[in-house]
Amino acid sequence: MGVIGAGNVGRALVGLLSDPTRAHALEDAATAPLELVGVGVRDATLPRPGVADNLLTSDVAGLIEKDLDVLVEVAGGVVPTRPYLESALRRGISVVTANKALMAECGTELALIAHEHGADLFYEGAVGGAIPILRALRTSLAGERITRVMGIVNGTTNFILTQMTTGGSDYRDALAQAQALGYAEADPSADVEGYDAAAKVQILSTLAFGTRLSGDEIDREGVTSIRSIDVAFAQRSGYVIKLLGVAERVGETGVSRRVHPAMVPLGHPLAAVNGATNAVFVEGVKSGPLMWLGQGAGGEATATAVLGDVLDAARNRVSGRHDAPFSGDRSLHYVPSERLSSVYYLSVDVIDQPGVLAEVAGVFGRHRVSIQSMEQSDQGVDARLSFLTHHALRADVLATLEELTSLASVESVGACIAVIDRLSA
Amino acid sequence: MGVIGAGNVGRALVGLLSDPTRAHALEDAATAPLELVGVGVRDATLPRPGVADNLLTSDVAGLIEKDLDVLVEVAGGVVPTRPYLESALRRGISVVTANKALMAECGTELALIAHEHGADLFYEGAVGGAIPILRALRTSLAGERITRVMGIVNGTTNFILTQMTTGGSDYRDALAQAQALGYAEADPSADVEGYDAAAKVQILSTLAFGTRLSGDEIDREGVTSIRSIDVAFAQRSGYVIKLLGVAERVGETGVSRRVHPAMVPLGHPLAAVNGATNAVFVEGVKSGPLMWLGQGAGGEATATAVLGDVLDAARNRVSGRHDAPFSGDRSLHYVPSERLSSVYYLSVDVIDQPGVLAEVAGVFGRHRVSIQSMEQSDQGVDARLSFLTHHALRADVLATLEELTSLASVESVGACIAVIDRLSA
Repeated sequence: MGVIGAGNVGRALVGLLSDPTRAHALEDAATAPLELVGVGVRDATLPRPGVADNLLTSDVAGLIEKDLDVLVEVAGGVVPTRPYLESALRRGISVVTANKALMAECGTELALIAHEHGADLFYEGAVGGAIPILRALRTSLAGERITRVMGIVNGTTNFILTQMTTGGSDYRDALAQAQALGYAEADPSADVEGYDAAAKVQILSTLAFGTRLSGDEIDREGVTSIRSIDVAFAQRSGYVIKLLGVAERVGETGVSRRVHPAMVPLGHPLAAVNGATNAVFVEGVKSGPLMWLGQGAGGEATATAVLGDVLDAARNRVSGRHDAPFSGDRSLHYVPSERLSSVYYLSVDVIDQPGVLAEVAGVFGRHRVSIQSMEQSDQGVDARLSFLTHHALRADVLATLEELTSLASVESVGACIAVIDRLSA
Repeated sequence: MGVIGAGNVGRALVGLLSDPTRAHALEDAATAPLELVGVGVRDATLPRPGVADNLLTSDVAGLIEKDLDVLVEVAGGVVPTRPYLESALRRGISVVTANKALMAECGTELALIAHEHGADLFYEGAVGGAIPILRALRTSLAGERITRVMGIVNGTTNFILTQMTTGGSDYRDALAQAQALGYAEADPSADVEGYDAAAKVQILSTLAFGTRLSGDEIDREGVTSIRSIDVAFAQRSGYVIKLLGVAERVGETGVSRRVHPAMVPLGHPLAAVNGATNAVFVEGVKSGPLMWLGQGAGGEATATAVLGDVLDAARNRVSGRHDAPFSGDRSLHYVPSERLSSVYYLSVDVIDQPGVLAEVAGVFGRHRVSIQSMEQSDQGVDARLSFLTHHALRADVLATLEELTSLASVESVGACIAVIDRLSA
């Protein structure tokens, strides 16, 4: 086998492969000895702690031309990784990758190339670190009709929201803490704008439903507009705000795919998932709800997922087979969130004068949005109105907000956050 | 394929296999059409809703002699199931079973017979209903060194303890509720004495550690002695009492296997697992903590796990291979709980008179059990002393309790419940 990448995951993987206390168990699980012939890196002259110098090579193409059974890619990026993986697959080399961006962008194409050339393409490490959710969707749940996958799949934003909930931080402070602890990048947009979570939704929904939808067909909203007052309202009302990645069947042939903050009821298993932990909640027609929880990131945790894939690919290679990809359900189409209905939490700052509530309530009514409860709090000359709606079409809720924004008595429209149903069980 | 058993799981499975909306996905996942040729039952003249009459047969041996690829066993019991499964495996027929008693008793022997005859033996449905934990241990985590598996693997007792915690019921009332709702049998001993959980610990620890230990080498304590006052003490102290099945490495070659009530700190993912839900918490050296959660029982949930196994076995059959069982680690030996140390909650009812606390504390000291905190509550002429110890050897704690029982000033010794450490993460 060969490895591309000697970052945190790559070095942790090499460490696992060369750990003498694991050697017997690995050979047993792979049904053959695993031999690492090279680690491809951009610059082979840089020291890579834990990786023997003679394994390092900057000739990645040359590494792939060796007689590999399995190629592991933990370098990240789409360019130049994609052509490397394609060329390996075309040679019949099974590929294990933890590259979520790549798999979200062209996972289906790569899976077809793998299948055509009798190779496996596994990518457990691309979603949820060590959490073995992808293999479960591919195998254990292959016979189940999954209705919804709902995950806390970005540790950075979950850390930020947890700090805002339990530590009382505001968004800026919580982000600064996340950056100080290394959970968030200097430019945090991939996390806080929901791009990372959207890539994981693309991967999860492709496996859960066999969709062939493009990664663009995911509605995406991040956490940057969540305010302390929204977090406090959630807590008072028996909820906690989480950034969820959701893929959900709508009717017979529709699929909604989206990333957005949501009010999750306390008591729901996802509500207790705190800090940088990830969790994926899956609902099936017969299986009932299932949840997977674990560390969503970290070199060592991700390396265990990669290693599980390597062992699976090795077993397949020894027995001369490969896992066929799902053929996919071409009939499934994307349903934009505007056409879905949900309970919503809305907050509106208004001028504190008589008649304003009636005016605001009138706007809700004109757009068929029925109010479940309302809380008014004084802010000096302003008042803040916090609403929980009944189930309402998102398009109607957005139209309500748009009309409210145009009212002279409305100072600003704040949050618009979907509320997740309590579990009936 | 053939099925033995037409109870809740069997009928749900037949329903899934004959569901026209799943037909395409099943054939796709199995890489071949699945054809059900017969359902073996004790009395084929009884009506079995959902199962076509012409499939029913009381000639189970004859069913096995048909040209089956996969035999599913969801009848339960060890006699006469075991010889049926053995004879199928010896014919090279892959076997899928949800029979936890059988797998706990002779899973290793059956796995060897399967391997010798080129067949698979899968049993995901035997632990945790629909939760796909066994396949994850076999495959995704095959390269990881697991240090501890800790599960809420019996829904009946978790329902009872949840009722005692959230509903304020005492044990008898909670058990009666569980019986009224069908969660507990008229004779509840298999659940409340921990036998069911012990069978699952046997299965989990065999897979997690590759042990070859016998099912007798599991320390077992049920929930029958848990009192409302223990539940209330736990709540006051930031814990919740759960019946845990635990398998844990002790040093290089030891394994502790046990079922016992434990005080689980609030904030631990297992603390939020309520009602009849099951969950398995797995800790690995590199993966960090992982948890699986789902419905622990129910015909339909279990049938989805069985179906996942059937698809896996079918794929293997089509590609002419089978999954090799772990060779097992014969060096691992069982470590009795007495030799382990833990923090303990102990409660002792004493005569309320001066000097008694000093006397009781002296007994703790003589047995090297150090007290972390003590709470005294008056009960009229008696007083109840509730202790949390520091980490202490279980043998020393038991010796302490034995000596306390012999004191004239001690009315009775109540709970002795291990306290689970908070997660450091």
